[in-house]
Amino acid sequence: PAARAAIRRGKPTNHKVFGEAQALLAGDALLTLAFSCLAESESPDLRRAIRLLASAAGPLGMVGGQVLDIASHDPGEVILAQIHKRKTGALIRVAVEGTAALVGALPEQIEELGFYGENLGLAFQLADDLQDYDPQQPEKISYVTRFGVAETQRRMKAAGESAVKALMRFDETADGLRQMVQFNSGRV
Amino acid sequence: PAARAAIRRGKPTNHKVFGEAQALLAGDALLTLAFSCLAESESPDLRRAIRLLASAAGPLGMVGGQVLDIASHDPGEVILAQIHKRKTGALIRVAVEGTAALVGALPEQIEELGFYGENLGLAFQLADDLQDYDPQQPEKISYVTRFGVAETQRRMKAAGESAVKALMRFDETADGLRQMVQFNSGRV
Repeated sequence: PAARAAIRRGKPTNHKVFGEAQALLAGDALLTLAFSCLAESESPDLRRAIRLLASAAGPLGMVGGQVLDIASHDPGEVILAQIHKRKTGALIRVAVEGTAALVGALPEQIEELGFYGENLGLAFQLADDLQDYDPQQPEKISYVTRFGVAETQRRMKAAGESAVKALMRFDETADGLRQMVQFNSGRV
Repeated sequence: PAARAAIRRGKPTNHKVFGEAQALLAGDALLTLAFSCLAESESPDLRRAIRLLASAAGPLGMVGGQVLDIASHDPGEVILAQIHKRKTGALIRVAVEGTAALVGALPEQIEELGFYGENLGLAFQLADDLQDYDPQQPEKISYVTRFGVAETQRRMKAAGESAVKALMRFDETADGLRQMVQFNSGRV
């Protein structure tokens, strides 16, 4: 099983400070609150919003990615990509693509924003892997332990560029999304 | 922290068979699927249904009860009751009370069904404690280790009677609810 990071983004992780059980319950509480937030929102189509979030968070998304992560003892590139796509990518993607769908964006806009979200999610995970990389914990499989620092940086940059490119047909109202890509690559 | 049961209702628990991490993820998956089910249902008021479920499952309900359970090293009767009320009671209560609210039951009916649910939840937990009691694991705090087998049985019976009494003004359409009380006490 994947070793759990003791430090994430420069700070001790939840389970190191409060213990594993309480850290996991914090996740359960936040997952529940996410649905609660949707119910309190003025979403034009609550049913669809709940479906989208449940699909991205559930067995086919975040939870399934985590299961795969734990079950994969020595994941190759394909499985590693699957894990990241589901564990973090699915939620980031649905936050952009799902919102677009809910506010009635055009099908091609939804598709472009989905592509943006998927690539931002990948760039985010690559930046995390770079930031959390600890040569003293080589048992924690990540893009960095698989491909090295330089190749991981190259891939992060490429994913960020693909994300920005997906916004080509959006005007300055999408600048916030463009800034998120910059913010992410600025972390490492 | 509360010791985790290795056996529950006569079978090895999920975390003993599949490991703690996968067992916890099964819980996350089921929690997500519960919201998904509501979204697929023909609930007359989806917003309210999501709110009710999130409230019973979240920090003030199931998740909060579990946090309290882990944080309480030697809980007395009041804390033990709080833990059970939130950990298992809240979900059982909302399944009955919430459904009544969603289908437009009268306020007094909703109240009576809520009282039924709360007492069924308590009787359920007491039956679980009786069934899981293992004299070789005295560190697992439960009603049985606190009050003994006879007193726990007495309380389970009383809670079941209160649950049935709450249904006094319902006709035979509530027989399924009455049978659940019998089924529960028949377990031990």
